[in-house]
Amino acid sequence: MKNEKNAVAVGVDLGGTNVKAGLVSSEGEILYQSKLPTRASEGPRAILSQVGASIKDCLSQANSWEVKGIGIGSPGIVDNEGVVKSPPNLTGWDTIPLRSEIENVFGIPVSVENDANAAAIAESRFGAGRNHPDFLFVIWGTGVGGGLILNRKIYRGQSGGAGEIGHISINYEGPICNCGSRGCVEAYVGQRYLSHRTAERLRSGEKSIIVDLVKGDLSNIEPLVISQAAERGDHLANHVLEEAATLLGVALGSVMSIMDLRVSIIGGGISAVGDGTMNAIKHSIQRHVQKPLRPGIQVIRAALGNNAGILGAAGLIL
Amino acid sequence: MKNEKNAVAVGVDLGGTNVKAGLVSSEGEILYQSKLPTRASEGPRAILSQVGASIKDCLSQANSWEVKGIGIGSPGIVDNEGVVKSPPNLTGWDTIPLRSEIENVFGIPVSVENDANAAAIAESRFGAGRNHPDFLFVIWGTGVGGGLILNRKIYRGQSGGAGEIGHISINYEGPICNCGSRGCVEAYVGQRYLSHRTAERLRSGEKSIIVDLVKGDLSNIEPLVISQAAERGDHLANHVLEEAATLLGVALGSVMSIMDLRVSIIGGGISAVGDGTMNAIKHSIQRHVQKPLRPGIQVIRAALGNNAGILGAAGLIL
Repeated sequence: MKNEKNAVAVGVDLGGTNVKAGLVSSEGEILYQSKLPTRASEGPRAILSQVGASIKDCLSQANSWEVKGIGIGSPGIVDNEGVVKSPPNLTGWDTIPLRSEIENVFGIPVSVENDANAAAIAESRFGAGRNHPDFLFVIWGTGVGGGLILNRKIYRGQSGGAGEIGHISINYEGPICNCGSRGCVEAYVGQRYLSHRTAERLRSGEKSIIVDLVKGDLSNIEPLVISQAAERGDHLANHVLEEAATLLGVALGSVMSIMDLRVSIIGGGISAVGDGTMNAIKHSIQRHVQKPLRPGIQVIRAALGNNAGILGAAGLIL
Repeated sequence: MKNEKNAVAVGVDLGGTNVKAGLVSSEGEILYQSKLPTRASEGPRAILSQVGASIKDCLSQANSWEVKGIGIGSPGIVDNEGVVKSPPNLTGWDTIPLRSEIENVFGIPVSVENDANAAAIAESRFGAGRNHPDFLFVIWGTGVGGGLILNRKIYRGQSGGAGEIGHISINYEGPICNCGSRGCVEAYVGQRYLSHRTAERLRSGEKSIIVDLVKGDLSNIEPLVISQAAERGDHLANHVLEEAATLLGVALGSVMSIMDLRVSIIGGGISAVGDGTMNAIKHSIQRHVQKPLRPGIQVIRAALGNNAGILGAAGLIL
């Protein structure tokens, strides 16, 4: 007889490029992992077929484990019925009832969540948030996203949009964002902005070892390169990262103040930057939250990296 | 025998000037009301004595009603044990265990909550929020305060500070606030700022009927006067209010976006301004929340006015 100790879930991380899936134990161990191209350009049916194939692959490896269900982390807004709306980077996908589509195929419970929320759940269950019942999870990468963990649960809000921090305005007189608002934090600290701003400063004549690191091709500047330069003491790199960290901290400070939160966990591509940048985020938050919160502020790097998507999706079930 | 229908609570609204208390029915009817001076300048013992006297007065009028307990709305931060910390305007009050102090005197259950949270509870239970399970309550007056009602309950956060929206930065390059941060919304739209800004513009030569309304004494400008002028079509008054409403909306938009909220209820002294200002708040929120929330945004005037404090305090018990 199968027992609880052998209970597992399939976790699916549906991205714009790849569908990653894994068999995950209740302790957060990935027992088996598969990766297929998303075939996003071929439209929703192709994407659904790839999701199905990745799940089938995992299920075929389940052996004696009892598969409790399938969790899926998806870009876009996910409503309470598991319907995914307008995911960026998934062509032709307007509204898809992802949960019921997959449930109909496999006949076991399916749970769908926004990908940032899934990563937040992963950090809460298995990662840097294990000892923190309440925290703001931040994905700092191409854009800025997030999720709110309150009392060890994801807070979704009325329509699943809670925790979306990228469009907090940190300057009502700031540049117009593509959302139509002004001064959104994403427009100040997203990856593209950082690379662009750095290249601009180099073109205007500032000196930096970044030019050597990208072999003179300024279109190859990315946050990791800036971070490498910063760690070697490069003035421009340090200034760009510190400025971005400070601006990110303004938005995080607002969220943490409103929710009376002490802890922020930072994930996403740019979270690979050095400790100096993490400290700059922390100091900026401390300057911007209401006074009684300041001594307790913690900024922690996410622990799960690329596996957060699979683990968080499985965490929806386990 | 007393029955449930006759159950009442004492609600106490502890303010910097007066202690207001009332006997409140479970339907939110104020059956008896008393008002005593707070004697704030005489220190905590005097204040506690006035709170006690106002409760005693209410209890003496309880007749056949069964008094379930005593709720108190207090300025300052109120922790989960009913300890009040550093309330503004209450002299010499550092940390007072208000709940245990009052419970020891009267021997019935006592519950203490921050005054903005109490007012939010009042609107949720008995006022403009009755049909809205989730909303952001805003007190727009001398400063800017607030409370979060999620699933019909107040969200307090770890230490009772949740919902404090006054120190959200709407401009990281803005003026330094007395909290040490920059560009706090309170520093842009609080009563003092509005009056000051209006007087400044009049002194610099702009024309307005406000000068007549305050009989030439610019130190008497207050939001109600500005509102009266605005309703008569006064250009300056309309501009000042619209500007403030728009800036307030930037901060509210951030909060509503993060929490996936559709509804904001606006109370406090300045909420007596005209519908034009309420609409300006709404339009600004719509420009600043994430797109999917925009069509559903509602801005509603608080319904309970000066009684919100007593009703919300009683609502802690009922």
